[in-house]
Amino acid sequence: MKSLVIDADRHTPDTLDAVHVEQHDIETRAGECRVAVTLAGICGTDLQILQGYAGFSGVPGHEFVGVVETAPDGDRHWIGKRVVGEINIGCGTCDWCRADTANHCPTRTVLGIVGRAGAFASHLSLPAGNFHIVPDTLDDEAAVLVEPTAAACEILTQVDIGPRARVGVVGDGRMALLVGQVLRTTGADVTLFGKHDWKLQVARDLGLDAKRSADDVPTSTFDVTVDVTGRPAGLSRAMELVRPRGTVVMKSTFHGETPITLWPAIVDEVTLVGSRCGPFADAIALLTGGQVHIGPLLAGTYPLEEFGAAFNAARSELKVLLQP
Amino acid sequence: MKSLVIDADRHTPDTLDAVHVEQHDIETRAGECRVAVTLAGICGTDLQILQGYAGFSGVPGHEFVGVVETAPDGDRHWIGKRVVGEINIGCGTCDWCRADTANHCPTRTVLGIVGRAGAFASHLSLPAGNFHIVPDTLDDEAAVLVEPTAAACEILTQVDIGPRARVGVVGDGRMALLVGQVLRTTGADVTLFGKHDWKLQVARDLGLDAKRSADDVPTSTFDVTVDVTGRPAGLSRAMELVRPRGTVVMKSTFHGETPITLWPAIVDEVTLVGSRCGPFADAIALLTGGQVHIGPLLAGTYPLEEFGAAFNAARSELKVLLQP
Repeated sequence: MKSLVIDADRHTPDTLDAVHVEQHDIETRAGECRVAVTLAGICGTDLQILQGYAGFSGVPGHEFVGVVETAPDGDRHWIGKRVVGEINIGCGTCDWCRADTANHCPTRTVLGIVGRAGAFASHLSLPAGNFHIVPDTLDDEAAVLVEPTAAACEILTQVDIGPRARVGVVGDGRMALLVGQVLRTTGADVTLFGKHDWKLQVARDLGLDAKRSADDVPTSTFDVTVDVTGRPAGLSRAMELVRPRGTVVMKSTFHGETPITLWPAIVDEVTLVGSRCGPFADAIALLTGGQVHIGPLLAGTYPLEEFGAAFNAARSELKVLLQP
Repeated sequence: MKSLVIDADRHTPDTLDAVHVEQHDIETRAGECRVAVTLAGICGTDLQILQGYAGFSGVPGHEFVGVVETAPDGDRHWIGKRVVGEINIGCGTCDWCRADTANHCPTRTVLGIVGRAGAFASHLSLPAGNFHIVPDTLDDEAAVLVEPTAAACEILTQVDIGPRARVGVVGDGRMALLVGQVLRTTGADVTLFGKHDWKLQVARDLGLDAKRSADDVPTSTFDVTVDVTGRPAGLSRAMELVRPRGTVVMKSTFHGETPITLWPAIVDEVTLVGSRCGPFADAIALLTGGQVHIGPLLAGTYPLEEFGAAFNAARSELKVLLQP
């Protein structure tokens, strides 16, 4: 067994000095299953964690596909199954958990993000209740993108987007390209705003409208905008593009304090919605149904030991995968 | 006729040097009515306008009660009526205006705020369509508070607040005390958080729960919180107090850029809602029905010429009125 580990006492944000791969036993927690990780995906949150976000130390990684190796009594029918897994593990007894929303359990752990070793490892531990079977028609590269696709689907559970809606997605990275494809399934008119010509071309190849963010675009016109940049300037742009009484979805987390000009959102009675993890079943349906394509997003698969090259690629490329 | 005027070329924010009262004719715009102002109220927006907010020059003031003196043909039945008036004047032809929502008309003027002389004057000009009759049972001091009470009522048109909701109002000023009273009409459990003992006592005298903002209060517990401080620290407090998937209402405008820590709102999937002008009819009903009391808020009425003393009082006291 082996894991990629971020040292607890690192003091050098934004470098890979505090990261190494080590051979060691990986604990399967009591009542949980052991999964052999086939592939894991690098996302923006992982890159932020390397810079100190959430004060995380240990094994990062929360997007994976794998095969269940061991399971406790009662869950043994999972053994041998190819699965993806939801990343929040709740206490099981609070109001949130009883409402089947461990995502907001105040004492939850989160795979590779809060208090729990993650997926950049040969094996990981999760409760069987977090698993979803991967259909045979979905290959491993697509399956590892179920988690971020689910996060994109979360927007549809929060905001009513009808077929006549005008939607603007600010960002042209891997997550923006998923969000654009997911929101297009409503029939809405979706335009993606980015600053990298080649990524905008990927968006167009996926059938999305795409514009340079700096282009002269009528402001205050979109019913819904989504910031998928994780940068204050992206959120500001999303707030400029939205119409009065429209909705701005904040899809990517911001590290630290964000200086934003709020008064126009108050005068225009804009709604801002924070959006995080979403429904895996919806994501699996969209990926198997061919409404969300991940082929053009894939930028390479690296062995776990080549994490340096992988993280560097993930900073500029689209979706980079790790193979433990 | 006389008006309080902010000079166009002022370069000294936050002083009263650029303000004077002058005798002059006040134009009644074509197709509009002339109103003799009985009383006008000073609100936080007026104090921000003195500091340069919205780049306004001319006659400020947007809370008033008055008597209609002249009206064009077709509206002459308004003459002699005691009225309050909605403050947004739209183009009349755009989608917003046709939906009877001039509040968001992109070319609107706003009484005493955008492109139109306001209520700190002996007379003002408004279209008859903006008027609401003041019932005889509502005295002038209460009537002048219809506009801010309507702004508090706007929250109820935007956010679903049921009788079991836990609501936190951050702020203890005049607007916070109106918001607290209005939200309490839902049957919800409303707690007001402030930092001035005497204002918190006013809140308690009005029958509201009131706590010092610095007191040790469980965070992440309120279903809905409202920032009525207009300060970044107030918005941050409102965001701390709200539960996951709860709603933070931004009721007061912020001048300039606001540094806020947004990631917890994204992780907790919090909704932030900008809220501005509201329904006058609802406000009149609450004030005449005795569900909103304004007596304890009144801090004095000043002649227009004593604007300096009035503005200074409005900075620390509750509701200060001007009598032209």
